[in-house]
Amino acid sequence: MEHELKELIKKCDLAIKHEDFETLMNYYTEDAILVVKPGMIAKGKEEIKKAFIAIAKYFNNSIVPTQGEMIILEAGDTALVISQTLLTADKMDSEYSMDRRATYVFKKNSQGEWLCAIDNSYGTDIISN
Amino acid sequence: MEHELKELIKKCDLAIKHEDFETLMNYYTEDAILVVKPGMIAKGKEEIKKAFIAIAKYFNNSIVPTQGEMIILEAGDTALVISQTLLTADKMDSEYSMDRRATYVFKKNSQGEWLCAIDNSYGTDIISN
Repeated sequence: MEHELKELIKKCDLAIKHEDFETLMNYYTEDAILVVKPGMIAKGKEEIKKAFIAIAKYFNNSIVPTQGEMIILEAGDTALVISQTLLTADKMDSEYSMDRRATYVFKKNSQGEWLCAIDNSYGTDIISN
Repeated sequence: MEHELKELIKKCDLAIKHEDFETLMNYYTEDAILVVKPGMIAKGKEEIKKAFIAIAKYFNNSIVPTQGEMIILEAGDTALVISQTLLTADKMDSEYSMDRRATYVFKKNSQGEWLCAIDNSYGTDIISN
């Protein structure tokens, strides 16, 4: 059986593909943050949902994220996922990388469910050096 | 004033430089993990301390870590630090990079103190693609 976080990230990717952002928001903590692009952060479910709507539009409502190689670093109720995130879309001129080394931080809540607290698909590329 | 996590990481770097691993362990959660090298994980304070002793020895007891550019992504009681981590040591033939893009996950405890839960100085380089 796959790691439950791998399954969860698959559900997130499907929700993004289907633009089902109501479902997607169930997988985030209340105070989660999303790195929309380097230097721009969305905070909390409302801002994150709006950012995903804008991202979908930017990619001509055709974005499909999938994950390649993935390593899950788990420490108690906290996990850091390092993942090759692949984006495909009907858009030829994106100024953002479509093949990323992402970093996602998940927290387990009191019901034992993993929720995304920090969604940074740009990984270490957000520092310029 | 600098972000408290930046100050804390400076204290960690100093403790590593001085090989004061008792002090260093105060900055980790009980169930913290350390990526010793890609594919090798130390779990819990005892294993992490032993790993730091081995790392110090590997670098001829001369290792000095410092941080360059750093971005702190904070979501409530959880933070992901993306940092350029520079290592210097009196060892010319290290098989590991001395200039890294590290990923550190910190958690705030009930006393409001940040503690390191996941210490991965290799960042996204732990995936091979």
